[in-house]
Amino acid sequence: MQSNKTSSGRFFEHFTLNEVINHATPRTITAGDVALYIALTGSRNPLHCSEPFAQSVGYQSAPIDDLLTFHIAFGKTVPDISVNAVANLGYADVRFLQPVSVGDTLSTSSQVIGLKQNSNGKNGVVYVRSTSVNQHNQPVLSWVRWVMVHKNDANAPAPETTIPELPAFVAADQLSIPAYLTTGNFDQQATGGQFYWEDYQTGERINHAAGLTINQSDHSLATRLYQNNARLHFDAHLMQSSTFGKRLVYGGIVISACRALSYEGLENAISIAAINAGTHANPSFAGDTIYTFTEVLDRWELPNRNDLGALRLRMVGIKNMNPADLAETKQFNSYHPNVVLDLDYTVLMPRKGNK
Amino acid sequence: MQSNKTSSGRFFEHFTLNEVINHATPRTITAGDVALYIALTGSRNPLHCSEPFAQSVGYQSAPIDDLLTFHIAFGKTVPDISVNAVANLGYADVRFLQPVSVGDTLSTSSQVIGLKQNSNGKNGVVYVRSTSVNQHNQPVLSWVRWVMVHKNDANAPAPETTIPELPAFVAADQLSIPAYLTTGNFDQQATGGQFYWEDYQTGERINHAAGLTINQSDHSLATRLYQNNARLHFDAHLMQSSTFGKRLVYGGIVISACRALSYEGLENAISIAAINAGTHANPSFAGDTIYTFTEVLDRWELPNRNDLGALRLRMVGIKNMNPADLAETKQFNSYHPNVVLDLDYTVLMPRKGNK
Amino acid sequence: MQSNKTSSGRFFEHFTLNEVINHATPRTITAGDVALYIALTGSRNPLHCSEPFAQSVGYQSAPIDDLLTFHIAFGKTVPDISVNAVANLGYADVRFLQPVSVGDTLSTSSQVIGLKQNSNGKNGVVYVRSTSVNQHNQPVLSWVRWVMVHKNDANAPAPETTIPELPAFVAADQLSIPAYLTTGNFDQQATGGQFYWEDYQTGERINHAAGLTINQSDHSLATRLYQNNARLHFDAHLMQSSTFGKRLVYGGIVISACRALSYEGLENAISIAAINAGTHANPSFAGDTIYTFTEVLDRWELPNRNDLGALRLRMVGIKNMNPADLAETKQFNSYHPNVVLDLDYTVLMPRKGNK
Repeated sequence: MQSNKTSSGRFFEHFTLNEVINHATPRTITAGDVALYIALTGSRNPLHCSEPFAQSVGYQSAPIDDLLTFHIAFGKTVPDISVNAVANLGYADVRFLQPVSVGDTLSTSSQVIGLKQNSNGKNGVVYVRSTSVNQHNQPVLSWVRWVMVHKNDANAPAPETTIPELPAFVAADQLSIPAYLTTGNFDQQATGGQFYWEDYQTGERINHAAGLTINQSDHSLATRLYQNNARLHFDAHLMQSSTFGKRLVYGGIVISACRALSYEGLENAISIAAINAGTHANPSFAGDTIYTFTEVLDRWELPNRNDLGALRLRMVGIKNMNPADLAETKQFNSYHPNVVLDLDYTVLMPRKGNK
Repeated sequence: MQSNKTSSGRFFEHFTLNEVINHATPRTITAGDVALYIALTGSRNPLHCSEPFAQSVGYQSAPIDDLLTFHIAFGKTVPDISVNAVANLGYADVRFLQPVSVGDTLSTSSQVIGLKQNSNGKNGVVYVRSTSVNQHNQPVLSWVRWVMVHKNDANAPAPETTIPELPAFVAADQLSIPAYLTTGNFDQQATGGQFYWEDYQTGERINHAAGLTINQSDHSLATRLYQNNARLHFDAHLMQSSTFGKRLVYGGIVISACRALSYEGLENAISIAAINAGTHANPSFAGDTIYTFTEVLDRWELPNRNDLGALRLRMVGIKNMNPADLAETKQFNSYHPNVVLDLDYTVLMPRKGNK
Repeated sequence: MQSNKTSSGRFFEHFTLNEVINHATPRTITAGDVALYIALTGSRNPLHCSEPFAQSVGYQSAPIDDLLTFHIAFGKTVPDISVNAVANLGYADVRFLQPVSVGDTLSTSSQVIGLKQNSNGKNGVVYVRSTSVNQHNQPVLSWVRWVMVHKNDANAPAPETTIPELPAFVAADQLSIPAYLTTGNFDQQATGGQFYWEDYQTGERINHAAGLTINQSDHSLATRLYQNNARLHFDAHLMQSSTFGKRLVYGGIVISACRALSYEGLENAISIAAINAGTHANPSFAGDTIYTFTEVLDRWELPNRNDLGALRLRMVGIKNMNPADLAETKQFNSYHPNVVLDLDYTVLMPRKGNK
């Protein structure tokens, strides 16, 4: 008997401007998630793995890695937003609004803030602002992404084109900084880093030495942990007949790998306050070795905080090639084939003088 | 100096009718187990990953996935029961008696309830009923399985043949349903499912779209987490000289994969109440992509519960082939070579009308 | 703009006798670490996975596996000590001073206790004593290791040669045994072992039957969990141009595999009190299947404890070869090519007579 119980998911014509979609599977963060995140990335930031260190800078308990929050929240949007996506086109205005700790439960919803059918009539771009709230209904993360989504019915009428205005970056006075965050007891022995906010110069480029090879199970475990069910990461049988002939690595894996690899040189970057923009320039596959370099885009003072500053950074992920060997990330306006990530983000860092 | 400290384990002639075997390694469930189970399966059932959702349906704390309980309990029986098994022949009368949460400790024992030497004189079938109890000595899981076990001494006398009577299924009035389970606040936004008990029809077949490729590390990690030490899953050197030339995937991995893959279409199935019967129709190996379809076998009302019903389901696991392409699971009484699992189980689901 | 933010790490000429190096990233142990350790090794010792069992032998809460403590503490020393190592030459005087449980935070430091430049002038041997303390500043682990480290500047002057005196083994009266450890309720059903201290004979060799194939993700996950950032374990791109052409497995993975594999035959070995000496005889790679045998080197009574004894054991790790097939671990003073580990360590075990 034919069943009506499965759905092929939303196609472009199913999205309506301004509608709000509540995503399934609220998720309580556990100590197991934190340990797995370390095992998957090798992250060494003491804020996320040392309770005494977290307490020394004012937290009641260690917050989880900002990117773990991002991936778990993001994963919940996939079944409703991007299950029929042709491509994830970009991120903007990603704001980390409040720290998340073990025991917190995240619930996520998305609002459609833009629609534009492509001229081929076969697909279109959907813009959503997603928000994840904790069990107290406080927003912890808000972000915009836009994806190209297939039409199921080519004859479905095109919606009115609406393209949201998005900020080029989250301005310094828009960053959410916990009032309790204090740097008076900041212990650089715990981070292993000797450089503070003042030590970074706009234009400075840090070629991080370490590389990380992505194994097949690594990325599968991570993506499943995030309950991100995009088929192209899990289903080798399906992907045999795709352009690439094999599974793709979830782009968030690359972001986390680059962030962990860039620890050396950015040890005192306490947390991520915002992601301003992001592009997955080329796909990654199991077996690729990821490297990264960081470029300092800007250095901002923060309102009412003379102990803490912000650094706007560009983190470029490169596969199978040392960052020192890559002079230009783009050639004729298109990315070098080994560039896999171009992310513009903002971190908080203690100031040497006033902490 | 020759050591007497290792044992080659029990062979067929070492089992005695009615004897009780207490298995080693009591196991306390942790938040780490729960996170790993999500990472290994991609399970999205909010009952197991959201404390607020679990509380909204009456649980004091989120219960772990029923299959995680099963695998951990099952694993403890392997060193004593099936280390010299030729094959796991089947399961029956698997009853989930009480939810298990983080902090509970499971201890498992088995009673031999049947013995039958095969006519070749080289092996025989052992039937055991295994029971796992929590730290309060309350049974949480009880199941029967039968395995074909090698004889070590072909001249050992055959035991009297005893074949236990096993129920074809666990009847509705035998299902254990927590008295505190309540569906009044059941939130279908949390599950993402719109279908309730009344919406399912006997004979209905749901072809679940998602597939999951089993990586080598995935199944190794899972089987070790369950402390199941069956050599054929871990020892590639040993398995080179086996019929298959490589490691086999623990059958429980396939059960969990199918259960997670069948989430879409069964979102409101709160928990598993029983496994009525199960067969691993063909072996699986790393690299296989698992798909599944579900057939609704029956729909039962439950005594004293008009807010909740039971669905008896058949979950068929298929490798490297879309379920929609498989019309018949058997040909001439033997399984299609791509069918890897045929499981008859019972879930609890809220009733639309009375919840 | 050239950045000064990354460092190529310490070379031989950067170590000074007696200097103390405080390592970054204090680490709070979580339930996630414990679950991952089981998933990575298959360990079945109930002391580490059953709260009731741990309490039955006097612990307030289950201690983590001694080797998990070792790997996490060891990992912290890598960025400062061995990032430019040619080879890890050995361990000695490894003392497990106090049990570690979930919630404890480990901080690690090292003192340089010996230096010897090699006659080639290109590298030298650095001896360090490392100590890990918990959040109460109580030492939980202390160990000596020596590594051969590259010189960066071949013209840097050689330091005065100092070679520390190291004990051949940690003597019985030097072992740290928790005063609260009690064996009166020791439950051999929980361990599955029937042999006690008195049952082991000096010279006895136990060939453990089980083997464990190391998958690529397994060892990567473990090494990252320990926050050990030695590049040769993670960076396949880099290692393509190495002697071996591929990534090496962190030696600690092999130690843990052997310890878990040797459970059968040593079930009642409660905990590790010391590692007396250790050598990684040959490298291991993903795909290798690890086997092990144990030789009883000595059997010691313990001062003031007639319920507990110590066994000094030799644990030999072998790859891709059954232990029963290896008569001699060395030929002409060099290790058989399949021998990967030769570890001399001491365990505590209840005495049959007096427990």
